[in-house]
Amino acid sequence: MLDEYYMAKAISLAKKGWYSTHPNPRVGCVLVRDDEIIAEGWHQYAGQGHAEVNALAVLAKKNIHAKGATAYVTLEPCSHFGKTPPCSNALIEVGITRVVIAMVDPNPLVSGNGVQRLQESGVKVKTGVLEAEARTLNSGFIQRMESKRPRVRCKMAMSLDGRTAMANGESKWITSADAREDVQRLRAESSVILTGIGTIIADDPSMNVRSHKYTDVKDGVQERGMRQPDRFILDTQLRTPTQAKILSLPGKTVIATAKARQVLMQQKIQDLESKGANVLFLPIQKRPSTSSLSLQATMSLMAQQQYNDVLLEAGATLTGAMLQAGFVDELIIYMAPHLMGSEARGLFNLTGLESMKQRINLNIQDIRAVGEDFRITAKPVLVSESADKHRDTR
Amino acid sequence: MLDEYYMAKAISLAKKGWYSTHPNPRVGCVLVRDDEIIAEGWHQYAGQGHAEVNALAVLAKKNIHAKGATAYVTLEPCSHFGKTPPCSNALIEVGITRVVIAMVDPNPLVSGNGVQRLQESGVKVKTGVLEAEARTLNSGFIQRMESKRPRVRCKMAMSLDGRTAMANGESKWITSADAREDVQRLRAESSVILTGIGTIIADDPSMNVRSHKYTDVKDGVQERGMRQPDRFILDTQLRTPTQAKILSLPGKTVIATAKARQVLMQQKIQDLESKGANVLFLPIQKRPSTSSLSLQATMSLMAQQQYNDVLLEAGATLTGAMLQAGFVDELIIYMAPHLMGSEARGLFNLTGLESMKQRINLNIQDIRAVGEDFRITAKPVLVSESADKHRDTR
Repeated sequence: MLDEYYMAKAISLAKKGWYSTHPNPRVGCVLVRDDEIIAEGWHQYAGQGHAEVNALAVLAKKNIHAKGATAYVTLEPCSHFGKTPPCSNALIEVGITRVVIAMVDPNPLVSGNGVQRLQESGVKVKTGVLEAEARTLNSGFIQRMESKRPRVRCKMAMSLDGRTAMANGESKWITSADAREDVQRLRAESSVILTGIGTIIADDPSMNVRSHKYTDVKDGVQERGMRQPDRFILDTQLRTPTQAKILSLPGKTVIATAKARQVLMQQKIQDLESKGANVLFLPIQKRPSTSSLSLQATMSLMAQQQYNDVLLEAGATLTGAMLQAGFVDELIIYMAPHLMGSEARGLFNLTGLESMKQRINLNIQDIRAVGEDFRITAKPVLVSESADKHRDTR
Repeated sequence: MLDEYYMAKAISLAKKGWYSTHPNPRVGCVLVRDDEIIAEGWHQYAGQGHAEVNALAVLAKKNIHAKGATAYVTLEPCSHFGKTPPCSNALIEVGITRVVIAMVDPNPLVSGNGVQRLQESGVKVKTGVLEAEARTLNSGFIQRMESKRPRVRCKMAMSLDGRTAMANGESKWITSADAREDVQRLRAESSVILTGIGTIIADDPSMNVRSHKYTDVKDGVQERGMRQPDRFILDTQLRTPTQAKILSLPGKTVIATAKARQVLMQQKIQDLESKGANVLFLPIQKRPSTSSLSLQATMSLMAQQQYNDVLLEAGATLTGAMLQAGFVDELIIYMAPHLMGSEARGLFNLTGLESMKQRINLNIQDIRAVGEDFRITAKPVLVSESADKHRDTR
């Protein structure tokens, strides 16, 4: 039980990096000797010390030795030389004799190496303590490591009758200020906001974090260490206006367009890049009615760009296609207490969905009040026709 | 505090008539002397004893006198000769010296008469004890008395994205068996089910109570004393098929049609009535795109027919029109954990609703899990354009 106690402490330390560790995982570390915590550490920014190293630095500063101590770490200590030297070596060198680990590294290329390195040096290792809790610290990072695609959360705002805008496009505001503030949190904890060119042209959105809760600077340090999420625009025909508001804001904007545009639209690419955009190229995926960028390739590219957590904020077409492709891991829907009627715009365009059997099943995780609205959190269960067939045979 | 204690007991007795008192109100009565309950009564069926009379009958049977006792009644005792003699007289005659009443009679024509009759005979009267709780026993009855229209609850089943059927009409089943069982309860506690001819033709529904929970007969007595709700079909052109399943079931079916049909379709009327239907006539209300039966006249007619609680189970057109007319008092929406997509059918057709300002505001009372679905209970706040303008000036 003591192991769980100290690991819970390490997990709460890891959470201090909730808004800042991108693209690294959130990790916490507690050093314990004779049933006493002698040092704590957590990872804050990529390129700066890992949790274990930060905890050891505290010890050094206090002039306390680490011999015979136990280290509790929420993630397997690394065994490779990256921006910092390997943490497993550091733990061995200072005389740590036991290491308790919540979860092994999810990267299949290095998973278990840290444990092995420690054991080879005679350090006792225990893994799997509060593993489920530790995994929730890094859902996006783990998914990127295990599946080579980021975790995608799709945020929508709708009326109770499932409408996102009037027929004429009017949509300000479906939800209350409280719900919009909650969206600021979603953005702050995401690596990147993914949207479509339709939304850029229709709304000219900023898609940044504006809430003082995350942007305030106090004593020269930004609260919660938040970084602005990048913006990632799917723009098959490269129609993003060079005057788009999103390009004028601090932080990185990626515009992904069709490979063919690389040659055809050199001037436009140059103009967009002179505005600070980063133009990338993706293959086309032919669909029955339209051609658009391959969502599979988009996911791979986003993983390569080290995006762990993607917040999808887009219209009914892109969100519907992402859902049908099986790339939405979680839906976060703000439901406002209003009716907008059947003429108003729908939530998701789901192509080829004609019978009840084909509908997308959801696993509702949570429904709770946010101001006068309700926030519904749900996970799509099975989305493809073949998956549906599979379900019918159970 | 003792008064509240005994009134709470009377309210719980009134609830025993939840499924059976139609068209009468649910009423409970407790007789107390020397801090002891000496008799209890409640109203079960129209035409049978009122709560007070039933409590007095218990006393008589036990050969106990009522002199000096206090009567706790959830509704003002009646002072008129109806199917039974006036209860206020009965209480006076047996020597009750104090009467505690939760709420006065909501019928403006007789309200206060019972209290006056008691006071004139020297009985002490106290009113308003647990009034709010007592009013919830008879929301429909009170509304019919006060507003000359029944209370209408609109039940819908939808996917999370606000869809009630696929584009081809397929809708079996949006919700789970648990939600459908919950609808059985709504039907059982309603006086009548209101629907439209579109639903009759498309689905050929039964709209009766089939759950054993309400229909089982035990020792010769039906559980909960439930009566089947009547069915009330709005059928402007008198298109109800004489073979409609709803006509073959026990209980009363009313078909309301346009006045002009009375002369034009005598044979069809005769055929429907020979199948047991009761054909009634209503004026037409011209609308921009269509003509249909006046909903105002429908509400008046239903009140005249002594319907307290109407359950509206219909398609997007009738439910939308009822909402826009301001005649829906409560929405009960079963939301299933599925997405059906923007091609599927919407929840409510709301005509002329073009801007966000015009949307219908809801006051969400409750959201709770029912099996794998969620039941949302909401009250429309303001529905007319003029009401909306009023809101904007606040």
